[in-house]
Amino acid sequence: MTELTIALDAMGGDQGPDIVVTALARALSSYTQVDFILVGDQQVLQPILDRYPAISQSPRVTLQHASQVVAMDDKPSAVVRAKPDSSMRAALDLVNNGSADACVSAGNTGALMAMAYLTLKPIPGVVRPALVAPLPQQDGRQSLLLDLGANPVCDAETLCQFGIMGSVMAQQINRQSYPRVALLNMGREDLKGNDTVKQAAQLLKATPGIHYIGFVEGNDLFSGRADVIVCDGFTGNIALKACEGMAELLYHNLKQSIQGHLLTKVLAKLLFKRHKKSWQWLNPDQYNGASLLGLRGVVMKSHGNASANAYFSAIAHAIDEASVELPQRIHDRIEHALLAQVSDNRNE
Amino acid sequence: MTELTIALDAMGGDQGPDIVVTALARALSSYTQVDFILVGDQQVLQPILDRYPAISQSPRVTLQHASQVVAMDDKPSAVVRAKPDSSMRAALDLVNNGSADACVSAGNTGALMAMAYLTLKPIPGVVRPALVAPLPQQDGRQSLLLDLGANPVCDAETLCQFGIMGSVMAQQINRQSYPRVALLNMGREDLKGNDTVKQAAQLLKATPGIHYIGFVEGNDLFSGRADVIVCDGFTGNIALKACEGMAELLYHNLKQSIQGHLLTKVLAKLLFKRHKKSWQWLNPDQYNGASLLGLRGVVMKSHGNASANAYFSAIAHAIDEASVELPQRIHDRIEHALLAQVSDNRNE
Repeated sequence: MTELTIALDAMGGDQGPDIVVTALARALSSYTQVDFILVGDQQVLQPILDRYPAISQSPRVTLQHASQVVAMDDKPSAVVRAKPDSSMRAALDLVNNGSADACVSAGNTGALMAMAYLTLKPIPGVVRPALVAPLPQQDGRQSLLLDLGANPVCDAETLCQFGIMGSVMAQQINRQSYPRVALLNMGREDLKGNDTVKQAAQLLKATPGIHYIGFVEGNDLFSGRADVIVCDGFTGNIALKACEGMAELLYHNLKQSIQGHLLTKVLAKLLFKRHKKSWQWLNPDQYNGASLLGLRGVVMKSHGNASANAYFSAIAHAIDEASVELPQRIHDRIEHALLAQVSDNRNE
Repeated sequence: MTELTIALDAMGGDQGPDIVVTALARALSSYTQVDFILVGDQQVLQPILDRYPAISQSPRVTLQHASQVVAMDDKPSAVVRAKPDSSMRAALDLVNNGSADACVSAGNTGALMAMAYLTLKPIPGVVRPALVAPLPQQDGRQSLLLDLGANPVCDAETLCQFGIMGSVMAQQINRQSYPRVALLNMGREDLKGNDTVKQAAQLLKATPGIHYIGFVEGNDLFSGRADVIVCDGFTGNIALKACEGMAELLYHNLKQSIQGHLLTKVLAKLLFKRHKKSWQWLNPDQYNGASLLGLRGVVMKSHGNASANAYFSAIAHAIDEASVELPQRIHDRIEHALLAQVSDNRNE
């Protein structure tokens, strides 16, 4: 008997369904207790599946047809009504009606967020769901950064809730028993920043069970200073992409420095062979998968141009979250925080 | 006869006056047409200067005594009144009374911004001065990012002015005849982001003589897509420091990968020897120096823990800005924009 079922939106993403099917093949052998529902256009998927007898003959894989595909440039607001039979929508519906415990999609982020919000609905008491992703730290641990773009503007209460939800996720997924929660700001001093972060700091300080450590700066995203780093979606999106840009610049320059000189090329090749292993923890593939936190079900967003290995990581993250029933854990924690607030108000 | 005079706050920064004097020695031989005024505590500076006869015997260097020092942890609001005889204040006064054409300080950023604002005052029509710094691009050019933290909250009009001031600086300093101005946002589509960036986009589109190219994302900070990238100080500060954090993480990991294996160590050493040259353009020293743009004089902020070479770069940037009379160029451009606005309003 299997324990979990994961729905995969096979049609989303820039790379097409091939990488989803390849990732599924790997997941099938890695997670022998998990069932999968592959959602997408049967006519497109069948020829690909025919190349993978391990999948097409497995009793643990179901193919569910969906006639429509959400394009990467579809407008999120329009797609909800215009494409009722999209593979993305069908995958979310499977989670909503209990047929699946989580879903994974590499499709249009805006559309996924809008559709997930309407289909699964937020956990009672949650103001806004947040997009969260893990960041590698200098000490080898992982931190969580949220929000990454689901909410361009956030008030203090929303930021405080992000801290609570992130704290639950750090405990459940990263196994950090007492996660350090911080607010991202332009300085560590209490006086720094805008009014919203200052108010959010007061709220987080007053939240029982949250280990709020204060403000952190941009360079603390990777310093290991905090386990959960909270900001609005505008700031989080720009900060994360700025880091991607910096990494690209360094990589581009490294390549430029090496090319054109035979000796350097050979040395670099030898050096990188050694690096390949020790840089494994920095491999972006394993960090693929941003969770939509605060909904009644597990929704995992894979990068639009994820490789099969990266998509596999997103599946693995979805399984992790489903296996600890993360939405239920967040529900309990938010309920607890709200009850504490009510009791505080009564005592005042 | 010399053309320019630069005032150096010798006492600011984490590294003390030694690095300022070392940088001055280099500047003295590199810029033979420039005079310098070294401002600081004579008792502290004299023994250092005695080690540099090229400085102490030069008719192009004046030592000006200032009895107080702004500490790195002094509160900006308090320091203005509490330390009227600080070296930082004296350096700014020299610019204000015309004795110097620019000043450089590695001291407390907040104090420098507050004191520069009060001493030099903004250019007429400028809503808020902005902190701006150059960023290396993949194509080897430089872009300008502003604001980096002088203004945590900005309205659309302020962002638009940052675009104008940045455009003038890109023309005058980076010699870009038609600089591409962009707003930093969480996506390139017009619908993305908060109301302020959307309104700022409309204002920049309507500003004559500004080549506004739309929104750019965090990874475009280094992609070469724009010559001037505009955002509020909260976002800019976090984005820039996030990039520093990413660079530190990669460096830390590279070091970890190399250490402990003799062969790798030797290969790395050979490889880096080659790199040293071709990575020169990425050397952080040359990017040291953030300008406070929009004031009636040139104020250059050096990094608090800048090396002597990095401090020298800040002096060089200050000389560049003073030699093209950047404040006057910004004054002309802002006046022009305001007149165009008035004429637009009349015609409506």
